[in-house]
Amino acid sequence: MHHQVDGQSVSNSKPDQSTATTVVASGDNVAGGSRMVQQQSSSTNRKNFSLGKFSTVGSPVLCRALVAFGSRELPRICEVTVGVPLDGEVRVRMLCASICPTDTEAAVATEPSGFRFPCVLGHEGAGVVESVGPGVKSVKSGDYVIPCFLPFCGRCSLCKSGKTNLCDSGKQTTRLGLMQDGSTRFRLSGSDQQVFHFLGTSTLSEFSVIHEHHLAKVSKRAPPDRVCLLSCTVPCGLGAVFNTAQVVEGSTSAVFGLSLVGLAVIEALRLSNARRIIAIDIDDEKLSIARGWGATDCVNPGNCSGELPRVIQELSNGGVDYSFDCVGTSSVSRAALDCCHSGWGLATLVGCGGSTSSQLPFDQGQALSGKAWKGSIFGGYKSRAEIPVLVERYLSGEIMLNRFQVNRISLSSFAQGFSLVREGKCTAHQVVVFHQS
Amino acid sequence: MHHQVDGQSVSNSKPDQSTATTVVASGDNVAGGSRMVQQQSSSTNRKNFSLGKFSTVGSPVLCRALVAFGSRELPRICEVTVGVPLDGEVRVRMLCASICPTDTEAAVATEPSGFRFPCVLGHEGAGVVESVGPGVKSVKSGDYVIPCFLPFCGRCSLCKSGKTNLCDSGKQTTRLGLMQDGSTRFRLSGSDQQVFHFLGTSTLSEFSVIHEHHLAKVSKRAPPDRVCLLSCTVPCGLGAVFNTAQVVEGSTSAVFGLSLVGLAVIEALRLSNARRIIAIDIDDEKLSIARGWGATDCVNPGNCSGELPRVIQELSNGGVDYSFDCVGTSSVSRAALDCCHSGWGLATLVGCGGSTSSQLPFDQGQALSGKAWKGSIFGGYKSRAEIPVLVERYLSGEIMLNRFQVNRISLSSFAQGFSLVREGKCTAHQVVVFHQS
Repeated sequence: MHHQVDGQSVSNSKPDQSTATTVVASGDNVAGGSRMVQQQSSSTNRKNFSLGKFSTVGSPVLCRALVAFGSRELPRICEVTVGVPLDGEVRVRMLCASICPTDTEAAVATEPSGFRFPCVLGHEGAGVVESVGPGVKSVKSGDYVIPCFLPFCGRCSLCKSGKTNLCDSGKQTTRLGLMQDGSTRFRLSGSDQQVFHFLGTSTLSEFSVIHEHHLAKVSKRAPPDRVCLLSCTVPCGLGAVFNTAQVVEGSTSAVFGLSLVGLAVIEALRLSNARRIIAIDIDDEKLSIARGWGATDCVNPGNCSGELPRVIQELSNGGVDYSFDCVGTSSVSRAALDCCHSGWGLATLVGCGGSTSSQLPFDQGQALSGKAWKGSIFGGYKSRAEIPVLVERYLSGEIMLNRFQVNRISLSSFAQGFSLVREGKCTAHQVVVFHQS
Repeated sequence: MHHQVDGQSVSNSKPDQSTATTVVASGDNVAGGSRMVQQQSSSTNRKNFSLGKFSTVGSPVLCRALVAFGSRELPRICEVTVGVPLDGEVRVRMLCASICPTDTEAAVATEPSGFRFPCVLGHEGAGVVESVGPGVKSVKSGDYVIPCFLPFCGRCSLCKSGKTNLCDSGKQTTRLGLMQDGSTRFRLSGSDQQVFHFLGTSTLSEFSVIHEHHLAKVSKRAPPDRVCLLSCTVPCGLGAVFNTAQVVEGSTSAVFGLSLVGLAVIEALRLSNARRIIAIDIDDEKLSIARGWGATDCVNPGNCSGELPRVIQELSNGGVDYSFDCVGTSSVSRAALDCCHSGWGLATLVGCGGSTSSQLPFDQGQALSGKAWKGSIFGGYKSRAEIPVLVERYLSGEIMLNRFQVNRISLSSFAQGFSLVREGKCTAHQVVVFHQS
């Protein structure tokens, strides 16, 4: 598949010498009865389209998006109107968007989750700037961007601090599913019902309006169905090792949960020259993949003769130096803490499969034994500043994005991919390719 | 008061130009009907005794000790027989011992605490080596020592690690109130009932048998009723700031609970050139003392108009960089975490007033907001290696031990001091002076 971005031909197969098993869905018609969508469709050379020229600029766009209605109802593909970008905002035409468990969990939230419905899902992707609102200086039409759920304004005390990747920009509105002015840019077609945004990005839509603070401008050479992994999954795993835990050479680690984030953790441990990498999962197929990635020991808790933390401590001479909880439920968090070596063991929370309000079973005795527990969000990366660097490291062959298996699917066949993610059974990332040829 | 240690005259009032209000109890007769105690008493020049020559060497000693019987029963002064030191053990004649809340809590434990009764209390003190068992190389008779509840063998992987002050030496037996061979050196006089040890030290006894790994050999110039503070209280506070949190210049901190540990935290914050030190206590007298020590803001939760963490966040531009929980109950731990700045705030647990098995109310949301919670035990100091250094820093005038108020009391009048500590009302440390002149 080739895209032409500003006249430059971009191939998805280079530098991607992929070993992945991919499922590329068959051609996907862009539906939509509205004027603007028809204009968009008609202006698109579907084999080799120029993304630098948009006839949609300045008007609302009607397009397809994956809308979650909450309350255990599966999300549906809907026609939505995407408004023009206002102050500081950018309208992005998505090239690819991938489905992360956070999307599937939000979509069927069974408890007060903080998400508001209906909302356009998605927080991973890669796209092209269609137009920008007043005052936008960091990107321009035609720029190639990766949306990041954590903003980076570069001005607040948090952005200026070397200690954190959190940013104060839009903190109050983003969690309410709104743009910073308190309104939304999405409406359901046919009705005038507003649709909320999701994690500041809402990438599972052919078009999305995103604040410039959420957009990392990256090299146009980067294949979108690969670098969309750099909008969440891979940085979360790499950064947990490099930034949060700061794993040192020769150390021992345990990795709980071999989702793609868990595999990214293993990749980073390998790059950190970890001496021992103990992979833990209840799925033998995932354990087998992990071994191929560099895991030195594989443990299936279902086959353990004793308590899991004890088994890991026996494998690691009294406990691991670092553990990575890529699941995030209470029982896994506790096991990740228990298997650490007393005196210095650090358990890093990477996944958040549990509720963010659930209490950690961490007691004074654990703290006084010298173990620590630390959360990692987006791997500690400052999004706009550091994701472009990760893209370059991928393009130079240093970061092995191509080892991740991806299933390329169309938006209209999202349901299958969505189910695979929800069930946690797939070993490949589900990448929705918009405007497939 | 003067002691002569190995012929060297030691004054308690130099270099101690104390500003403390001290209560020195009146002369205290060493009781005891047994032969050995009579020998000990008769060999002692009570004004100016030589601690280098002991007629007790090689035989059990009968002396007085503070024995806790557990189960809500107040401890009593009892006559105990202290056995001769075996392999790796040292018999210490205590000069001073002070009462820490951990002693008073252990003495009246109302839940399974891990302590075994009866036991000889005390884990702070300063004393002189009376005799050593086979194989002891680190100290000899006449050496001046500070017992430390955390051992330092120097050989295990934990001792060798730069990351921890925990040590594997005697881990299994010490917590059971036993010496490393699984037996005790204390027996109740008149019966043959064994009495357990406490935290490897049992300093509230005229003589104690302690493993050499628990003994820091220190300068003979150090006044015992001052440096006994360096066996627990002061290192816990100083090290929480210097070692655990590693507070940097110009930062903001909140200190919960103005016990002497809390004051030691404030002293260390002052030495670290903290910009803002917010002291929190429900006792206005303690707040007043804290202000004199360098606290820039004082908060009495009883007088707060809003929720305590919010009040502190307002005082500190969104939250403090560091908080120190010198209380250790669940509600204080939570407040200490909540008042931290998102993105980097670190709450350090110093006190453990709650049960060590009580769960910390720390949730995923807190972790993902970039806050961390860390336990500090003995301030992260490696006891035998680093306490002698702290003694030197005190003797050189760098560490202001003399600012701590101490009440010098006799063992027979311990009850009053013990009650003051239990009630948490006193602002002075209760230092039992043995063999008072």
